[in-house]
Amino acid sequence: MPFLFNRNAINDVVSSHPEKARRLLVRQGHEKICEDLIDKARKQGIQYRILPADAFTKKCGTSRSHVCLECDDFIYTDQDDLLNKIRADRSHVPFLAIFDGVKDPHNLGNIVRTSVCLGVDAVIIPKDRSCMINETVVNVSRGAVEFIEIVRVTNLARYLDSLKKLGIFCYGLDEHADKALWETDLSGPVCLVMGGEEGLRRLTKEKCDDLVRIPTNPLFPSLNVATAYALASYEVMRSRH
Amino acid sequence: MPFLFNRNAINDVVSSHPEKARRLLVRQGHEKICEDLIDKARKQGIQYRILPADAFTKKCGTSRSHVCLECDDFIYTDQDDLLNKIRADRSHVPFLAIFDGVKDPHNLGNIVRTSVCLGVDAVIIPKDRSCMINETVVNVSRGAVEFIEIVRVTNLARYLDSLKKLGIFCYGLDEHADKALWETDLSGPVCLVMGGEEGLRRLTKEKCDDLVRIPTNPLFPSLNVATAYALASYEVMRSRH
Repeated sequence: MPFLFNRNAINDVVSSHPEKARRLLVRQGHEKICEDLIDKARKQGIQYRILPADAFTKKCGTSRSHVCLECDDFIYTDQDDLLNKIRADRSHVPFLAIFDGVKDPHNLGNIVRTSVCLGVDAVIIPKDRSCMINETVVNVSRGAVEFIEIVRVTNLARYLDSLKKLGIFCYGLDEHADKALWETDLSGPVCLVMGGEEGLRRLTKEKCDDLVRIPTNPLFPSLNVATAYALASYEVMRSRH
Repeated sequence: MPFLFNRNAINDVVSSHPEKARRLLVRQGHEKICEDLIDKARKQGIQYRILPADAFTKKCGTSRSHVCLECDDFIYTDQDDLLNKIRADRSHVPFLAIFDGVKDPHNLGNIVRTSVCLGVDAVIIPKDRSCMINETVVNVSRGAVEFIEIVRVTNLARYLDSLKKLGIFCYGLDEHADKALWETDLSGPVCLVMGGEEGLRRLTKEKCDDLVRIPTNPLFPSLNVATAYALASYEVMRSRH
């Protein structure tokens, strides 16, 4: 069961997704500075407990925090449910993102946070070769994992085919592509296809409808995967405005 | 003296900034898979040493790596030197970034990496209230700290005045600003002014020529500072193309 430690993240989950919260834990002596969170939890019908310092440290595994939200285990969206949802609501222009093998939980947490901020509908990761939604991801995302659909798929190549059949254009981000990101019209139904920390695999690349690149400094071209993704998502958002 | 562990980062520094490298250290038994790096170090006149496993772990402070580049201590650019350089080269359109109080070395490392990739000339941080260029920053930046000028300033407000006197337009990123990032012409001499993890301080905000915002999801508006900065830098790069 993941523990959330960031105050802003706790506040967001308690306010917008109280159903995901099990219990708010507060270290004894810190009731006063956590008053706002305790109040909000009470109003939302979330249990809270004041724990003696030692018990808090033992329960939460850290002596550096003084407040913690116990959350339900993370539940992934079923891969077919996402396809059905897209099929059912033709008025909405889908904006999806696939990550083929992100291993670092800091990167995945940042990716999820950026996705929610920039209006991405769903983040899709493969069942193997990828970091899962663990406690680090939840905390780095500042609780954003509860604000977006996250889908684990068994076969990424086949899933890309299904998305393409639904009229979603799949753009791979690749530093060797000819076309610059800003030369591309991204206003339609779109899925951004990103590699892991080491870039896009050949097989995944071949499945994409088109490849685009972010023009970078030739002496130092390699952006972090979460940063490259943020730039591409921003460009989708800008195209749509 | 910082140690660099990432292979790509080591490769970049050995190739492009051999003067910053003191010694390449390789864990015994890993000579073969580090052959390319050893070769390159030798060609660049950089010493290398193969160390027994225990000695390597002791020297480098980690048992998880098998190659490490000992680098010179990081040298900041003098705050007046940057101003003089801008004054001296009027053909170049300056692109600077100020960070008022980034505390997390992961964020600062990402910021420096992004800066070099997207063609920012210099990163400016205050002497107090900021993370310095430490080993984590160097590693997260993948060695990018050696590819850009990093300036520590004593008084940020006064430095902003000096930049403005040089005709550099200072844009603060602020989520409550009226103007969207993409509605702003960023093609001239520009300095992006970013807050730390908690946003821009009032005093710094007042010093800016203008404020812009990144339009985000109103239910979850808060982008990570390094991500917000990447989007703004991308927009500068795009405006200039």
